[in-house]
Amino acid sequence: MKIKIIGLGKMGLNLVSNLVGNKHEVICYDINESSREAAKELGAHPTEDLTSFFNTNKEEQNIYWMMLPSGKITEEMILTCQDNLNKDDILIDGGNSKFADSIYHYHLLKEKGIHFLDVGTSGGMSGARDGACMMVGGNQEIFKKIEQLFKDLCVDNGYLYCGEAGSGHYLKMVHNGIEYGMMQAIGEGFNLLHHSRYDYDLEQVARVFNNGSVVRSWLMELTEKALMENPTMEGISGQVPSSGEGKWTVEEMLELGQSAPVITQSLLTRYASMDEEKYGEKIIASLRNQFGGHVIPKD
Amino acid sequence: MKIKIIGLGKMGLNLVSNLVGNKHEVICYDINESSREAAKELGAHPTEDLTSFFNTNKEEQNIYWMMLPSGKITEEMILTCQDNLNKDDILIDGGNSKFADSIYHYHLLKEKGIHFLDVGTSGGMSGARDGACMMVGGNQEIFKKIEQLFKDLCVDNGYLYCGEAGSGHYLKMVHNGIEYGMMQAIGEGFNLLHHSRYDYDLEQVARVFNNGSVVRSWLMELTEKALMENPTMEGISGQVPSSGEGKWTVEEMLELGQSAPVITQSLLTRYASMDEEKYGEKIIASLRNQFGGHVIPKD
Repeated sequence: MKIKIIGLGKMGLNLVSNLVGNKHEVICYDINESSREAAKELGAHPTEDLTSFFNTNKEEQNIYWMMLPSGKITEEMILTCQDNLNKDDILIDGGNSKFADSIYHYHLLKEKGIHFLDVGTSGGMSGARDGACMMVGGNQEIFKKIEQLFKDLCVDNGYLYCGEAGSGHYLKMVHNGIEYGMMQAIGEGFNLLHHSRYDYDLEQVARVFNNGSVVRSWLMELTEKALMENPTMEGISGQVPSSGEGKWTVEEMLELGQSAPVITQSLLTRYASMDEEKYGEKIIASLRNQFGGHVIPKD
Repeated sequence: MKIKIIGLGKMGLNLVSNLVGNKHEVICYDINESSREAAKELGAHPTEDLTSFFNTNKEEQNIYWMMLPSGKITEEMILTCQDNLNKDDILIDGGNSKFADSIYHYHLLKEKGIHFLDVGTSGGMSGARDGACMMVGGNQEIFKKIEQLFKDLCVDNGYLYCGEAGSGHYLKMVHNGIEYGMMQAIGEGFNLLHHSRYDYDLEQVARVFNNGSVVRSWLMELTEKALMENPTMEGISGQVPSSGEGKWTVEEMLELGQSAPVITQSLLTRYASMDEEKYGEKIIASLRNQFGGHVIPKD
């Protein structure tokens, strides 16, 4: 197939590599020159000219695959696509968009006869390159029409048609919520071991956990790799940013009136890790001083 | 080697199967007749007579492997072993004992010259039978003397000598803490999907999560299997018992003055799931009624 890729970031470039390796013809667009050069080396046809990008093979039904940061950048590109794509073209959002946005985008593009699929992509950079996991929402016929693409890009049994518009990104959102919780559990456990009375070799601990134990997992393999490369976690600040999906999972939890304390707590722990000011803690320390004369730790 | 197994429960019997399969000679003890018969069929030599069990091969250095429920039963058997084992015999506690108990047992038995190893065993029943994951604490020379045993019983790279007495059970404790958190994250995520606006096939969701995604793991494979066998979770109460290790992890967290909110919350969620009385919730509903006239939901 001919695929037009929009966005040659880490995920986008690895996707190009995967597509070219599967004998697809890849035309791609990015504003960044070095990304375009990397795509060219992989065997794709990059351009910085959006007009010529859209006009290439204009007479055929085109498949566009967006791999952009979620939010404003994705939003703006979808509006651009709305103006430039033909009726019956297919636009895939393979990024981490909010499912509610994807429902909106589906209907927005439908007005112009453009087919929109929301595709949650998991597996990280190596997955995008060598075989990913994809969760697809949107019209089932459109999915079936290009199913071969998902077969090529994913590991065996690694894609799922989930249902109507938004269901792909919704599932990816909850997947990331689970991921937050698993990562936090691993972080907490290794922190306890780090502070324990025993002198564990934590890389060896991760290794033994990965061989035959109940907690063996890809995340534990990454833990082993991280501890091998940096046994003392040297130079790492301890801040854990988040990019939205954990937050949206918690928002959805509230919307559904359900309880998901571990996913919530994983998100809050990340927020706390980013909080250098610790204003709330300053208030608490001051209160302890007020009523009990406890010393306030100073900077 | 000749191994004497104490306790032929689910884990013990699978261990016997594993040992016999690895050409070890197994003498074993259990009070339960059907367990002894099962052990006999596996090719072991079971007995219900504790005195003859201890007296068999009394002239040699013996290796005893206890696989009993933690707490009182393990405690009593260790006292019995203290009275009956020879100097230089080796006693392994392969159960889920509290690490502090194991430190005590190590010193208790050392007084009589008996060598004690605390071995945390992970991988469930299938692991005990086909290849487990083991974390060993105690004297390193004793470990090295019988290392072949761990090599035989575990998957490749599936055992670790952790350090001094208690470190095997300590590591297993934290392993289970991580396991609690991972399971809770999976439970919460699937619960959100179950209540979501989309009609996901959750067995298929677990399947796709297991192929190429970041959350792929043995626990997710078990989730897939559970949903295949019982797609509607029919007949399951929703109560989640716990057997101690999560609680001990949280106790140790408090002892260390560290924060492990996800592991803690996983434990508390299990406790809440067991609480049919909901006394605290009754108080809260009554308070809402008192100050706001809100209706109290009745039985």
